Amino acid sequence: MGQATTFTLEVPTRNRCEFVDVTRRVQAVVDQAVADWAGVDTGTVICYVPHTTAGITIQENADPDVVHDVLWKLEQLIPKNEHAYRHAEGNTDSHIKASMMGSSVTVLVSGGKLVFGTWQGIYFTEFDGPRTRRMIVKIIAD
Amino acid sequence: MGQATTFTLEVPTRNRCEFVDVTRRVQAVVDQAVADWAGVDTGTVICYVPHTTAGITIQENADPDVVHDVLWKLEQLIPKNEHAYRHAEGNTDSHIKASMMGSSVTVLVSGGKLVFGTWQGIYFTEFDGPRTRRMIVKIIAD
Amino acid sequence: MGQATTFTLEVPTRNRCEFVDVTRRVQAVVDQAVADWAGVDTGTVICYVPHTTAGITIQENADPDVVHDVLWKLEQLIPKNEHAYRHAEGNTDSHIKASMMGSSVTVLVSGGKLVFGTWQGIYFTEFDGPRTRRMIVKIIAD
Repeated sequence: MGQATTFTLEVPTRNRCEFVDVTRRVQAVVDQAVADWAGVDTGTVICYVPHTTAGITIQENADPDVVHDVLWKLEQLIPKNEHAYRHAEGNTDSHIKASMMGSSVTVLVSGGKLVFGTWQGIYFTEFDGPRTRRMIVKIIAD
Repeated sequence: MGQATTFTLEVPTRNRCEFVDVTRRVQAVVDQAVADWAGVDTGTVICYVPHTTAGITIQENADPDVVHDVLWKLEQLIPKNEHAYRHAEGNTDSHIKASMMGSSVTVLVSGGKLVFGTWQGIYFTEFDGPRTRRMIVKIIAD
Repeated sequence: MGQATTFTLEVPTRNRCEFVDVTRRVQAVVDQAVADWAGVDTGTVICYVPHTTAGITIQENADPDVVHDVLWKLEQLIPKNEHAYRHAEGNTDSHIKASMMGSSVTVLVSGGKLVFGTWQGIYFTEFDGPRTRRMIVKIIAD
């Protein structure tokens, strides 16, 4: 049987819609797991969001304008208010945006490091903040 | 080597576009797997849809208006008929909606239970029904 | 501990936006892994794209018109140029399309074969080509 470790991180958000870069925090969790694995440094990480008005995605973390533009476009496609929405809480758009981004990302680990391209980072995608959110990070050794 | 079990569920759908809550059925499959695992009650579940005009997503299962609104908005963004569509079967929109939701979700299992936030459920997302569909549920013990 | 193997594939693309069918190449990698696994022929495959302007999805691979229509609709929803985009590289749309498709797909393996419905295939989704891209395929035995 393999080795698996699960951590829960708190993610405070400050705006209604916001991409929070959690890459360093996920890598820190991987560092901790690998230290416990007695020599194993490859595996798989699942970052899971237990919310329905927030999601998670991998995006460029070099130029903050990318995230600005993604948020702007999502708002254009899925505005907060639409005449046909029935959900009384007024956050239907948050639910739709969350489903489009998805509730989990899977990232590989090699040599103790998250396997990324040059500009990739993991973003917690808040669509109904500000709130204190949670993200669950599970690391499974090969 | 870990323990893994795979189950195939039939999912009958009744409308062209419909979100079918399959949460209880997935939990029942987890219960069965955990009963076979001799004491192991943590793991990972992959729910996989072997279709290209249906998908799967995690959404709120408390207020049915949320699902109504998501379906309405998807139809606004991706209507059934567009002049430029070439695919002769008339279900191009179903394919696009399916790719936007995705073909699988990954959910964690802890203490024998699917790890969910308060309002989360798993929805099979039909976009070209009614049909009898299939969903494959794989449970991997830690 | 289970067995896991990781392969990196080069994916050359020829257009700015293009769906490249990589199904056969992923199956070939699975064949190679299974041959090394001494009798194990079930598992899970993660196809991971280490880029932020390309993604990956599962779609119909029977009628090429489906892919044509998906690309057309994505362009309608998320055109290359929008007045509000700030990202100076002019590929904001590529980033958004990539997040909508997602950076990985998970596929099950049974009897040494990718578990697919009749018409399913894996597509590398290029949104800022042509380029020589990479895709990482990880196969985890049960």
